[in-house]
Amino acid sequence: MNRRNFIKTSAVLGTAASIMPSSLFASASNKLQVGVIGTGLRGQGMTRLLLDRPDLDIPVICDIDNKMIDMVLNVFEKQGRPMPKIYKDGPEDFRNMLSKEDLDGVYIATPWEWHHPMAISAMENNIHVGTEVPAALTVNECWDLVNTSEKKNKLCMIMENVNYRRDIMAVLNMVRKGFFGELIHCQGGYQHDLRHVKFNDGKSAYGGGVEFGEKGFSEAHWRTQHSVDRNADLYPTHGLGPISPMLDINRGNRMVHLTSTASQSRGLHNYIVEHGGEDHPNAKINFKLGDVVTTVIKCAKGQTIMLSHDTNSPRPYSLNFRVQGTQGLWMKDNKSIYIEG
Amino acid sequence: MNRRNFIKTSAVLGTAASIMPSSLFASASNKLQVGVIGTGLRGQGMTRLLLDRPDLDIPVICDIDNKMIDMVLNVFEKQGRPMPKIYKDGPEDFRNMLSKEDLDGVYIATPWEWHHPMAISAMENNIHVGTEVPAALTVNECWDLVNTSEKKNKLCMIMENVNYRRDIMAVLNMVRKGFFGELIHCQGGYQHDLRHVKFNDGKSAYGGGVEFGEKGFSEAHWRTQHSVDRNADLYPTHGLGPISPMLDINRGNRMVHLTSTASQSRGLHNYIVEHGGEDHPNAKINFKLGDVVTTVIKCAKGQTIMLSHDTNSPRPYSLNFRVQGTQGLWMKDNKSIYIEG
Repeated sequence: MNRRNFIKTSAVLGTAASIMPSSLFASASNKLQVGVIGTGLRGQGMTRLLLDRPDLDIPVICDIDNKMIDMVLNVFEKQGRPMPKIYKDGPEDFRNMLSKEDLDGVYIATPWEWHHPMAISAMENNIHVGTEVPAALTVNECWDLVNTSEKKNKLCMIMENVNYRRDIMAVLNMVRKGFFGELIHCQGGYQHDLRHVKFNDGKSAYGGGVEFGEKGFSEAHWRTQHSVDRNADLYPTHGLGPISPMLDINRGNRMVHLTSTASQSRGLHNYIVEHGGEDHPNAKINFKLGDVVTTVIKCAKGQTIMLSHDTNSPRPYSLNFRVQGTQGLWMKDNKSIYIEG
Repeated sequence: MNRRNFIKTSAVLGTAASIMPSSLFASASNKLQVGVIGTGLRGQGMTRLLLDRPDLDIPVICDIDNKMIDMVLNVFEKQGRPMPKIYKDGPEDFRNMLSKEDLDGVYIATPWEWHHPMAISAMENNIHVGTEVPAALTVNECWDLVNTSEKKNKLCMIMENVNYRRDIMAVLNMVRKGFFGELIHCQGGYQHDLRHVKFNDGKSAYGGGVEFGEKGFSEAHWRTQHSVDRNADLYPTHGLGPISPMLDINRGNRMVHLTSTASQSRGLHNYIVEHGGEDHPNAKINFKLGDVVTTVIKCAKGQTIMLSHDTNSPRPYSLNFRVQGTQGLWMKDNKSIYIEG
């Protein structure tokens, strides 16, 4: 009986077993087997953290960028871990890895648009999924993940790291203990000046140029195109991730409608002109993404949620949290003036 | 030629003259004549400030509450000013005052629903208007004020005091000097725990009971009913007043659409139960006003405005200002936890 069948059989004993690896892997010889798809800068950092765990092996990785693969192999070497098997034969080679390898779980750190097909493929192969955010780009993709997870009885975890911030966990605990009374309104958002991430010189990850797409490196290689193509809150989970458990979303509560309103788009174009000149080819690009996108959500139990997406302008980093109830509230932002240059 | 005709004639010389009283009233014997309608606590405070000015007389007041009239006459006495003529013969007696008295301007500090008819009547009688906020309750009333002001060439000033806060004036100056670059997003709002204003014991203005309407005193007498009847941002001007000149609203820019989303209504009912008991008659009242109302406005030049209305819950006072441009921003709020009791 291979590992996958073992887990499948064990799962019949009770759902709890399948979500508590420690109960399945009691000995060092029976470690959790995790594959990694996407070994860019984010994947490398997470691989380092995963390899810190003595109860876990990474027997296999998948990427299509030789430079990134070399970098992540260096991580394995530094950690004194055996070199992984590598899948790198084109953008669909992850399917071979997921169908052929005997894995318990897979960690996905690829460009956004790949999270959904990779997560689906993993679950179809009876592998639990942890994916970087956002897990999906459309509502249909979201339902696809839910339906596949339920059909295959596999976990699909959106790895929203803000949920595990100390202040967020403290506030969630306060919410559950009733310190704020009945919640009535929450706010969150992604307010992060990403201009140095969306553009670089094609060599270093952060700034130094105004290239993106084919000529960009790391996130500029793929992330920036979403700002060309879409006008929306592209990245809602840093806010919604922590707020959802506080409001019992999909645990007795749910979102029922929303509105989303975008400002004009200025920041990315201005940045290109300022750092690359008016004659740079990218100065002709039309960015659809408004600089500030404000979304207001209504929940079935009455609460409202306000989300901000604000990644194209000079500003201090802030996730703009507020958790407000009938007895009090938590707010995160400073009073401040912030001027560039 | 009486004063009103003198001003009318002068106005022909140029609009500037009619909006610069100092140019019209050079001598102490030719003071600005201002009537006051509404001598409640707000009207009394403003009367005191008006009477501090040596270039201004208040020859006449109007109210229907003898207690308030007595209190404001005490203000005149303390300031060593002659007692005003009083109009107090029912809620429509202001019309007699406005048609019979020779006034340059009128200051209106009455319940919200009276601001519009009183301002219209004043302008129809060729009297300039300064009214407390909100100047109107419906869009039709707003247009009515604009049309009457233009037809009669009379000023109708919404006396939004937040516009004159030191920080607001400093930020407006910074906006006009271009420190923030091109504005892209602004926020404001009325976040003020008014539960002690909306309910009292019928004797003192602030708290001490859960009465309102006929049994309430001061603002509880009339203001609270708006929270029973309407679910909306009841009081947008503290935010919109300062933001509008920053965004050149009606000076080359305008608002083109908005959405408004309300949370559930809990705070006012809970307050009655907590301070008056479950059996108090007001515990049966159904308040339409959601505790937090979030409005997002889109401007013709692309900017977005987010407004909060939040007056039924324990929270620190905050007008929630943000003024954000391509070069930087101003934000007002603290990071904080606030718990009642």
